[in-house]
Amino acid sequence: MLTFRITHEESGGRARVGVLTTARSEIATPAFMPVGSLGNVRSVDGEELLKMGYGLILNNAYHLYLRPGHKVVEELGGVHGFTAWPGAILTDSGGFQVFSLAKFCKISDEGVMFQSHIDGSSRFISPETSIEIQEALGADIIMAFDHVVALPSSLDQVREASKRTSLWARRCVSAKRRTDQSLFGIVQGGLDAGLRVESARDLVSVGFDGYAVGGLSVGEDKADMYGMLDVTVPELPSAKPRYLMGVGMPEDLVEGVARGIDMFDCVVPSRHGRTGWLFTSFGRVVIKQARYARDEQPIDPACRCPVCTRYTRAYLHHLFGVKEMLGARLNTIHNLWFFAKLMEEIRSAVRGGTFQEFRREFHRTYVVDRP
Amino acid sequence: MLTFRITHEESGGRARVGVLTTARSEIATPAFMPVGSLGNVRSVDGEELLKMGYGLILNNAYHLYLRPGHKVVEELGGVHGFTAWPGAILTDSGGFQVFSLAKFCKISDEGVMFQSHIDGSSRFISPETSIEIQEALGADIIMAFDHVVALPSSLDQVREASKRTSLWARRCVSAKRRTDQSLFGIVQGGLDAGLRVESARDLVSVGFDGYAVGGLSVGEDKADMYGMLDVTVPELPSAKPRYLMGVGMPEDLVEGVARGIDMFDCVVPSRHGRTGWLFTSFGRVVIKQARYARDEQPIDPACRCPVCTRYTRAYLHHLFGVKEMLGARLNTIHNLWFFAKLMEEIRSAVRGGTFQEFRREFHRTYVVDRP
Ligand SMILES: [Zn+2]
Ligand SMILES: [Zn+2]
Repeated sequence: MLTFRITHEESGGRARVGVLTTARSEIATPAFMPVGSLGNVRSVDGEELLKMGYGLILNNAYHLYLRPGHKVVEELGGVHGFTAWPGAILTDSGGFQVFSLAKFCKISDEGVMFQSHIDGSSRFISPETSIEIQEALGADIIMAFDHVVALPSSLDQVREASKRTSLWARRCVSAKRRTDQSLFGIVQGGLDAGLRVESARDLVSVGFDGYAVGGLSVGEDKADMYGMLDVTVPELPSAKPRYLMGVGMPEDLVEGVARGIDMFDCVVPSRHGRTGWLFTSFGRVVIKQARYARDEQPIDPACRCPVCTRYTRAYLHHLFGVKEMLGARLNTIHNLWFFAKLMEEIRSAVRGGTFQEFRREFHRTYVVDRP
Repeated sequence: MLTFRITHEESGGRARVGVLTTARSEIATPAFMPVGSLGNVRSVDGEELLKMGYGLILNNAYHLYLRPGHKVVEELGGVHGFTAWPGAILTDSGGFQVFSLAKFCKISDEGVMFQSHIDGSSRFISPETSIEIQEALGADIIMAFDHVVALPSSLDQVREASKRTSLWARRCVSAKRRTDQSLFGIVQGGLDAGLRVESARDLVSVGFDGYAVGGLSVGEDKADMYGMLDVTVPELPSAKPRYLMGVGMPEDLVEGVARGIDMFDCVVPSRHGRTGWLFTSFGRVVIKQARYARDEQPIDPACRCPVCTRYTRAYLHHLFGVKEMLGARLNTIHNLWFFAKLMEEIRSAVRGGTFQEFRREFHRTYVVDRP
């Protein structure tokens, strides 16, 4: 089971550093979780993630349920045995994927009927089946099944989804059988402060091992997202880990930590890596640009990753141009390294009592990317 | 410059073990060279190749001439500087690619006019420009520009191509300016023993740093290919390295060594890796087959590679099925490891005077794949 110990708290602020201990590893928080949707983080393997300092990754229950199937994964030793990843794993519940990926979905209080985005087959996931799937997958941390609405939605739609998420959260707790997995609840409520507070209080009254803030980073302004953290986090018990789902960009990690978040996940380091969007200490490098064709510098001269210490922008530009998978891979490794390093710097600043200086300096030097 | 020292010769046979020394590395022969067409071996990087025991790889002059251009590569430190590969490199001359990949090609004694397979642009390569390109690329070993004909071709066509190859080989020697690169000639002659002997004798009379046997493994029966080696190799000076181009499958490596070959190159470990065709000590494993979906064994229980020591067939089957690039990569690593290991076993058998026993045992246990 999970234990969470806070070792440093910012005085006069919400940032904090802690240690999340699972049966398999100790993870320093605030932590960024790379996304391994189908059981692996695209193009890299577990040994490489460990070397970068990652001890916890996210797998998608929805994807593994469809392929190869949760029963197959269970038979092969669960996600840990199946993927041979030696660190800890969190599975999301499938809620977000059902609503964003399925070809068709019909929702009721009972659950969600949808068509697989792979083969069009009809499927049904309820809070109970989501827990059943996640128990078969066997991750260290599992998530309650939630109703995510796209933004913007009407306040009525957001309220309905938020209430349903609360109802489902209770059913997830009841359905849970395994005692060696930790269950996190997910706060919904769109961009409505009242609904967010209500959702948070309701989940806290049920009691979870950790609390996630869901339904953000779905197209809203960053100021709105940060505002929702400002009202939600104070409602969550400080002794439990707080997880901001699907976030984010480097600036969001810094601002999330400033608002008391302990865990993040996002596909950007790997997905952007594949499209040649490289994160650096000074902002974005788009490797396909012609200006890098003869550039003998590393991606980021300040980076000590295995890519920057070995390869030039010119070579990565070439690999990208010829569509060589090694290019996607090297870009991904650099990006994942950059995120790991950023979290390490954040933790170090919080420990040293210099987080606000770090935050100011970050915003001064890091050019935020406009998508 | 290249030195080649033979350390062991089979008594009563043609197999031999030696050391090829370049400015950058010592390569034990018989050696297999992975193919890095565009400056890298698909999906793996140089550090990984070194760890597998490879010290010499092949780059394609044709591909690098088109993208990013030999002048760009030269400016960035040649293939060594550009790709950051610390071992030795051999570039082929472009002959084979011009004839097999270009959209259109018109050949005369002067050279070959062709259309780029990338953008359709008109290009011209002669023996002189091939040497110019290869000198700009700066590999340790460069190849004479040859005329390769598809098989079957008429005897007249084969004779014409073989004679032109000889003519061009002389022009390559004259065009060569750099003294820090070694130049290999390429024996042609199709499946005609007389033409092969003639081609070999003519090249030997010119004098090269090594001799390649080209134009084989282009669809002919294996017996015919082996027969051509039987007549060609005895014509080549025993003190110089002998290189069988574009070959091959594991059984061809064993049979090539038995006929006195010192160097091989082939795309199969990486190309077959990407399509899920895995080489093992007992023959082929086609990882997409349903029977591997729940198979918890490694690809080859006898293999000590980083893939077999960590991942199951079931996981690799899953990665292949979901088209995850990590699958292609892990398969490639296993295959490259298998080829490196096979060459090591061959060398060890030759050194120990047990090559014929090794050869018999190999053919007894290794199931040759029918394409
Ligand atoms: Zn880097
Ligand atoms: Zn292996």
